[in-house]
Amino acid sequence: MIQQLAIVGLGLIGGSLARSLRSAGFVGKISGYDPDPAQCEAALKLGVIDRAGTSAADAVALADLVVLSVPVLHTVEAMRAVVPGLKVGAIVTDVGSTKQSVLRDVATACGGEVPAWFVAGHPIAGTEKSGVANSQPALFKGHRVIITPHAKQDLAAKAQVLAMWEACGARVVEMEAARHDAIFAATSHLPHLLAYSFVDMLDRLDHKHEIFPNAGGGFRDFTRIASSSPRMWHDIVKANKECVSELLAKQIEDLQKLQSLMAADRWEEVQHIFERARAARERYLAQIE
Amino acid sequence: MIQQLAIVGLGLIGGSLARSLRSAGFVGKISGYDPDPAQCEAALKLGVIDRAGTSAADAVALADLVVLSVPVLHTVEAMRAVVPGLKVGAIVTDVGSTKQSVLRDVATACGGEVPAWFVAGHPIAGTEKSGVANSQPALFKGHRVIITPHAKQDLAAKAQVLAMWEACGARVVEMEAARHDAIFAATSHLPHLLAYSFVDMLDRLDHKHEIFPNAGGGFRDFTRIASSSPRMWHDIVKANKECVSELLAKQIEDLQKLQSLMAADRWEEVQHIFERARAARERYLAQIE
Repeated sequence: MIQQLAIVGLGLIGGSLARSLRSAGFVGKISGYDPDPAQCEAALKLGVIDRAGTSAADAVALADLVVLSVPVLHTVEAMRAVVPGLKVGAIVTDVGSTKQSVLRDVATACGGEVPAWFVAGHPIAGTEKSGVANSQPALFKGHRVIITPHAKQDLAAKAQVLAMWEACGARVVEMEAARHDAIFAATSHLPHLLAYSFVDMLDRLDHKHEIFPNAGGGFRDFTRIASSSPRMWHDIVKANKECVSELLAKQIEDLQKLQSLMAADRWEEVQHIFERARAARERYLAQIE
Repeated sequence: MIQQLAIVGLGLIGGSLARSLRSAGFVGKISGYDPDPAQCEAALKLGVIDRAGTSAADAVALADLVVLSVPVLHTVEAMRAVVPGLKVGAIVTDVGSTKQSVLRDVATACGGEVPAWFVAGHPIAGTEKSGVANSQPALFKGHRVIITPHAKQDLAAKAQVLAMWEACGARVVEMEAARHDAIFAATSHLPHLLAYSFVDMLDRLDHKHEIFPNAGGGFRDFTRIASSSPRMWHDIVKANKECVSELLAKQIEDLQKLQSLMAADRWEEVQHIFERARAARERYLAQIE
């Protein structure tokens, strides 16, 4: 149980976490801060937070646990704003989709080293919708949360963050930050980039006005992530540039190979790729069901 | 109302059409044929058809309306099997995802010209699941069906097929076959190819065993179509090779451009692509809602 929780960044994830912890009875009071006054106001109105801080430092002043829930490239700025307000013994965690960049930025904001009281976390949940108005108390239920411990990690701080996520119904997994970034480049960052690029390509075709009215359910699901926040995904792709670039190069190479197979009418090999992909996805489904 | 309907090819689409027309009270008796005896048996057991033919010609012998529901590259073979069994005045239609190839193949099977009694159709509905066991009576409700008329098209035959689809709750749209193939290469064929290629690429990574357990909802939706029938999609991509190849080349070019922007740290332009894509998808959603 946490007496005082502070959420810095009142968007989909921050808002959903506050709602989830409140409905689990895991928190006493919740304060929050967002540079956008509209998000603060919405969060108060929806009962997501009890009090809106006048600044990040003000919002975290009484907090036992602070959750940074900002686009990953705002980590340095957000940490610099939060640190002067922290009380003795406060724990800070984050929810960013890239973990090496967050640890690097927290170190930058804290004089060169990640402090013992910082816990790097990443809930594997979200939707293509943004903003506190779309937050849901059950968003994390049954989902994974990755924690990537660092050299100076305080174990009690880590245990507190783990307990917070378990209260939301999530399962916590520990992983090295570099491993995390390689894995999520593959499962999440590259697909977003592919979906954005695909929709953008269609939108520049001559017959683009005939395309969307003829799109079916496959198109809708394939492109759903292209409705995600461009700003948030710009940050993620930039923060995880090395891993994403490496996979993008592999993907382009594979598509060129497919192009060659099609041009050479080597259709059995084309079908073989489709078969391998379907078999792989069936293994994936068997794991998540 | 159709007295006798025949379905040649008892898969997801053929089965769903039979179920849908029966529940709408639009058909008297339904006969069916599939080269796979297991599909025939399942269709009989599920009450999808009333009678299984011993051959395609036998199945269609009494039919007023015949629906070919086979992988598109089997059109010549299926038409050749069906034609000798057709009674005078019978209408034949299809459900294939490519329309130029189907019209070409029907002409090949019928002595060089598409007969007046053939109506080329394409319901924009389906799931990644295959087989008659997955068929659903409501599959076409609220969906589009494209009809691509040809030079010798009998208008009464076209009207009959239109009435059949409307009985399933679908909206019928007419379009030139070449236009159809260009549009569906963009909304359906290329996304399938991209999804297959993406999953296949991940499945060949060194850390592939760590990837799937860490995949979230975005991954699940983005890759759903990679669970589709490899055989059916092999046929579609091959049958619509020109249109798909042209778009694949554009997609590769766009991904290479994105790669260059990332390498040159031109992040504002990367974000601009994401923003254009999100705006385009929002326009798409506004159209379908």
